[in-house]
Parts: sequence; structure tokens; C-alpha cells
Amino acid sequence: MNEIKLFCPATIANLSCGFDVLGLCLDNVGDEMVIRKSAQKGIRITKIIGADLPLETENNVSGVAGLALLETVNPDFGFEIEIYKNIKAGSGIGSSAASSAGAVFGINALLGYPYSTKDLVQFAMQGEKLACGNAHADNVAPALMGGFTLVRSYSPLDIIKIESPSELYATVVHPQIELKTSDARSVLKQTVSLKSAIMQWGNVGGLIAGLYTQDYDLIGRSLHDEIVEPLRSVLIPGFDLIKQAALENGALGSGISGSGPSIFALSKGAATAEKIAKAMSAVYEAINLPYEIHVSKVNSEGVKIL
Amino acid sequence: MNEIKLFCPATIANLSCGFDVLGLCLDNVGDEMVIRKSAQKGIRITKIIGADLPLETENNVSGVAGLALLETVNPDFGFEIEIYKNIKAGSGIGSSAASSAGAVFGINALLGYPYSTKDLVQFAMQGEKLACGNAHADNVAPALMGGFTLVRSYSPLDIIKIESPSELYATVVHPQIELKTSDARSVLKQTVSLKSAIMQWGNVGGLIAGLYTQDYDLIGRSLHDEIVEPLRSVLIPGFDLIKQAALENGALGSGISGSGPSIFALSKGAATAEKIAKAMSAVYEAINLPYEIHVSKVNSEGVKIL
Repeated sequence: MNEIKLFCPATIANLSCGFDVLGLCLDNVGDEMVIRKSAQKGIRITKIIGADLPLETENNVSGVAGLALLETVNPDFGFEIEIYKNIKAGSGIGSSAASSAGAVFGINALLGYPYSTKDLVQFAMQGEKLACGNAHADNVAPALMGGFTLVRSYSPLDIIKIESPSELYATVVHPQIELKTSDARSVLKQTVSLKSAIMQWGNVGGLIAGLYTQDYDLIGRSLHDEIVEPLRSVLIPGFDLIKQAALENGALGSGISGSGPSIFALSKGAATAEKIAKAMSAVYEAINLPYEIHVSKVNSEGVKIL
Repeated sequence: MNEIKLFCPATIANLSCGFDVLGLCLDNVGDEMVIRKSAQKGIRITKIIGADLPLETENNVSGVAGLALLETVNPDFGFEIEIYKNIKAGSGIGSSAASSAGAVFGINALLGYPYSTKDLVQFAMQGEKLACGNAHADNVAPALMGGFTLVRSYSPLDIIKIESPSELYATVVHPQIELKTSDARSVLKQTVSLKSAIMQWGNVGGLIAGLYTQDYDLIGRSLHDEIVEPLRSVLIPGFDLIKQAALENGALGSGISGSGPSIFALSKGAATAEKIAKAMSAVYEAINLPYEIHVSKVNSEGVKIL
């Protein structure tokens, strides 16, 4: 195999109570990438369609993630990467993670799979480090592994994949505003009350239990964020109305995707997810705020070979 | 049925990362109770063997818990309760919870099971309120329901039972010192760092995932408490040595049982649990500190009819 074409999925990180640890993979929202072997060693980004991103390997997240992998293998050939972006940068659904995940997945495949998919997370994290200064795994892990992922620990890196209940759908609305990650981070408080923290880890426990037992009601009861959402949601126009519209239309829960500005809702079944999409759209249409909206099953496999 | 004899199990609450939310039920450590119908309405505590506890119904945790249940049913007969205590008060393995759980379980059975076992938790919590001023559920829930229990929320009360992996054993050592709950509470800080809180809920997620997948290694990797153990363990003589002895002898993890002074270790298989018991015993023998030690499988059913 000399060339591989990939679907590189968008992801939702910071899933309500699972701030910084829980993410999920979307199924029909994502980029495409073509990766091919080349005689010249190293990595060249030969084409980027759909976004204004750097072509220099060292300045591109897929280049940096790919190089991190290549350093450990050092083959006597190299790779060319073409990127067809659909996920908007800064949307809060893992645009950079999709590119980092795709690059390491594709290169690993063309090398004959020297690494397991889970092992690739550490390399893809280097792309995230370039993108936001922090080698976080909560988008690249679900992008690579699919389903839900729990980043239990960074030191050592310990990632647990949790299969998604079969009828779980996400609705994600992206208001077309710019929300800088630095602003989203600056509103966080470095200390939290013990009481809120206990409620949060009770809900994390409930959410994980709900996923394993396919208990949609329990998933819904657990989808609360006591700590971050109250601080960050004020940065997102119409957040309360969007969330209310989602819950009134049958969402199990709703919250901020990543560090925003996208807002997600989870629901049981495609029909409910579509109904929620309509209700969310109506909120932004009423205030004339441009938006994109996605309805997607949870993707169980992560990056896919096309 | 006019009389019922019960085994009322000890429990471990505040399971490492699961402070205030996660507990488990022990299988061969516990009290016995006999509960029988009587013509006289209300509840009378007719006998207490093995502990110096109040016989007045309103001052006894089993009396108070039983009355909370009876108030909702109001039968035209009453109950007598005999209590044979084996669990020492103040040991940190749910002595009062065993009595509260036994009382409501037995009365419910003699009434023909008007309530599910899970529904009984709310009544047993009233016994805990008498015992420690706080109607907490993290001992009465596992005592009634068995296995592991997650108290996801108090308002509304939401308890999730999680079956224990089949080979999971607990070793519990009880140093014979008095540790007042008020002292154990006073060392807690009312705020925690966001970073520690995130580590804690990552570990709660990992622990729940490990229980559902019977992944003993993951259970072990998740059994950390970033927040409470560092503060409380200094109140328990030899804590660090006991924990080290447990881990060096194959424990998956070790921590404070309840608010102490008992220390628990979890392990895979009875042989490891026994080996840990020997190592823990050696620590307290070396410093001439009297102790009791228990080795028990996790009890999957809670209160048992004898």
C-alpha cells in the first residue's frame, strides 16, 4: 500500500462532568486526508483545501504529529499529506485533533501498523501541543479510537475506550463567533469547592456506569457540569436558550463542546437529535446569529479508511 | 413470617478517589439481628449484645431507621429488634450503617416487601443522621444492596449498584485507636485545586470502568485519592507503612476506610488478600499497636437472611 485516503472525525471533548477527561467521536462530521509514501524522507504537506493553514511541516499539526511518529521508526522513505478540511478551526469540535489523528493513523498504516491505535495517541498529542500549547489527549484519543474515551491519567498516559450505547446521537451547533481558547481558559478558577468537586465525580461515575449499561436515563442524569460550564457558558451567545431548547426537545443532556463556542446535546435516537437540531437552529435564527449545525451518531471506530 | 434473622454486613465507604460517593459491601464481617413482629405498635430494642448502645428506640440507629420506614406504612402491629454487634463502633467500616440497614431490611421483609431494597436506603439514612449528624448513604447503600454502590446524587437520591468483579477481595485492618469523625472532618479543606479534582474524577471514571470490565489492573491504577487521603492519613498511626506493605504484597490499591481509622486494601484473589493481611499485621505488631484484621470477598447481595 502506497497511498491511503482517510476520514478524520470531529470530536467532542470536555463532556459536561468529564471536563479534561471525557470525549466522544462524531461519525459524519470530519475532514478527509490523503497520505502517500514518497521517496524523499520526512513529511511534506502538499495540499490544504478548505482552510488557511501553514504548509510548512513543522508549523502544521499533522506534520508535527507525523514527525513525532516517524522519529521512532525512521523509515528510508517519507510521506506526502493532502488535507481537505471541513471542520472549522476554533469551532470546539477538534479541528486540529482530526488532522493530527489522521496523519499518525495514515502513516502508521502505510508503515504496516507498527503501533496500535491507542499507542498513536501520544504522537497525535504533539500536534495538539503545536495547536494550543498543551499536549492534551481529549480530542485526539476519541478521534483515533472512536466511541467514548476516558483520559484517566497523563503521567503515565492511560486511556480507556468505552463503547457508545448503540442509539446515542449528538447534535452540535456552532455559532459563528470567535472564542479564543485563551479567553476560555482565563475564566477558569484554579480552585473549586470540595462540594462541587464531589458532585462532579459522582456524575462522572454515573456517566461511565450509564455508558456501560446503555442506561440512557442515567447518562442524562449524569450530564451535568458543576464547575466549568457556569464560568464558560457566559462567553457563548445564547448558551442558556440553546441548552433549554435541547432539553425541552428530549436531549439527555447538553453542554459546551471542548472549550466552545460549539454546544452539544446528546440524545437517544436520530429523530430526537434532528428535532433538537431544529430547536437549536430556531434559537440562533431568532437572534440572526450565523451558525452551523451537525447531527451525528457516535462513531465507534475513529479515523476510517475510505 | 413473624421473625427474621439477618446478617448485617460491614462496608467500606470513601473508596479512595470515590470520596463521599463510592462504597463496597463486605461478606464475612458484620452483625446479626433478629427482628420479630409484636402486637404492640412501634419498635422496641429488646436486646443488644456486644456493644454498649442505647436501647431507647429514638436513640438507637436501628430504631430511628425502622421508625422512618414504619411512618410510611403504619401497620397495626409493631416490631422487636435484637442486635448482636460484631462491628466495633468508630472503626470506619460502617457499624451504625449495618444496624440501620438491618432494621429496615428486616421490617420491610416482615411487612411483605412493600419497598425495593434500593428504596430502603432513604430510611436507613435516617439512622446515619442520628449516628453522625449527616444522613449520608455511602455505607447504608452498599450494606443494603451489596457489591459496589455509587451515590451519584442526594437531591434527588440516585444510587447505582455496580456488581463486583468475581475475584475481588478486601483486607481491612482496624488499629485500636479512637479517631473522632469530627477530627477526621476538621482536617478536610473546603476547596481543592482544579488540577487535583480533575485527576480525582479521571480516577473515578477509571475505577467504574474497571469494575464493569473486570479489569483488575485498571481498578488498581484508579485507586488513588488526590484530595482526602493526604490530609486524613496523618491521623492514622502507621498509615504509610500499612499502605506500603499492602502494595508490596500485591494489593491493587489501598486507602482509608470511611473516615478511618481502618485501612483497606483491595486485591485479586483470596491468597493475595491473606498475604496482605499478614504484612499489615506485621506492621502493627512491630510497633505494638493492637489491631483487628479482616479478609473478605466483596459481598454481592448486601444484608442476608440467615
